[in-house]
Amino acid sequence: AVVRCSEAAAKSAGAVPVQTGVYSTAGMKVEEFFRDSIGSWRSMRSSHNLAMSFMEEVNSEIEIENVELDDEAVLAICKQYETDPATAATAIKMSWEGTSDWDEDEVLEGSTLLVLVKDEEAKGRLLRSEGYAETVPAVGEWTMEADGTFVLITPYERASAEERIWFTTPNMRVRVSFIRTQTGEGVLTASMSTEIREL
Amino acid sequence: AVVRCSEAAAKSAGAVPVQTGVYSTAGMKVEEFFRDSIGSWRSMRSSHNLAMSFMEEVNSEIEIENVELDDEAVLAICKQYETDPATAATAIKMSWEGTSDWDEDEVLEGSTLLVLVKDEEAKGRLLRSEGYAETVPAVGEWTMEADGTFVLITPYERASAEERIWFTTPNMRVRVSFIRTQTGEGVLTASMSTEIREL
Repeated sequence: AVVRCSEAAAKSAGAVPVQTGVYSTAGMKVEEFFRDSIGSWRSMRSSHNLAMSFMEEVNSEIEIENVELDDEAVLAICKQYETDPATAATAIKMSWEGTSDWDEDEVLEGSTLLVLVKDEEAKGRLLRSEGYAETVPAVGEWTMEADGTFVLITPYERASAEERIWFTTPNMRVRVSFIRTQTGEGVLTASMSTEIREL
Repeated sequence: AVVRCSEAAAKSAGAVPVQTGVYSTAGMKVEEFFRDSIGSWRSMRSSHNLAMSFMEEVNSEIEIENVELDDEAVLAICKQYETDPATAATAIKMSWEGTSDWDEDEVLEGSTLLVLVKDEEAKGRLLRSEGYAETVPAVGEWTMEADGTFVLITPYERASAEERIWFTTPNMRVRVSFIRTQTGEGVLTASMSTEIREL
């Protein structure tokens, strides 16, 4: 996301002049996006259930680690998806641990291995190790948008997920996600996570 | 936002084939964006305070009404901002009433008149009637992105606001907002509103 605080707008409002944005992710490459994502993150997530009109808050710690492309687990995932390991551009392991405001005694935790396959410079597939909910691991389709947003669409049996992730500062990621009905016509849930890097 | 559930991805995951998206806002014009925004909306908003690590939930009713360009109030705002009323493309009145989970006895309400001025086809200024917090009404800079997202940057004395609003379905708007520090380097708050049209 580009910070577009222009001096012209500030002056016309009589406000103190604002410096033009110092941080822009325009043109960010997917490898850079993944590399900058490596680290420990403190996450706040708000989820909206549209049909039932309620919100949920989840606080988590997220760990993102680099995984070498010759790692056994990476090769195994490529094999499972009948994908040439040479097309894997990068891989990460994500682990999380958190609690929801619905039940603060229950710890929500898990981890997954993600392998990024490039079909084009700014587009490809994301292979994932088996999740806890689905019987068949889902393959996502990713694109890097011109403004540096990483977009991932993942189909499931009766729904699909759309995630949009971008850096608002070098140490903060924002993730906006939607779960849509199978036809794409309805949105079941919408979520926003703000993730602050632990330095 | 474009629904990009592809059959290829669905098949590769062994999932039931998903229809390609039926709703896309690619190429949406700003006049259409404003016109489709007219109506009554039920809003859920989650705000994240990044510095203090807490979240807030607000439930509101939002009313958006069309205002004719020859309305006295529109002419008055144009005059206040020394703007030729002929450059005003559309105007709306927004009113809201809601409660926060921090104090459900307090009603948060207000209204504002917004006048959209076009400087270019997909870019211009948004003039606003005086708000409740600032002494000087703020002028925002808006752009329509290629994917149909309306982006508004509004500078304030010691901060700036960035809002991104788009339709996820014809009857649902999503609004993601950030309050940034004056230099743009830090994000103070991030919010997501999901707004469902009351039919």
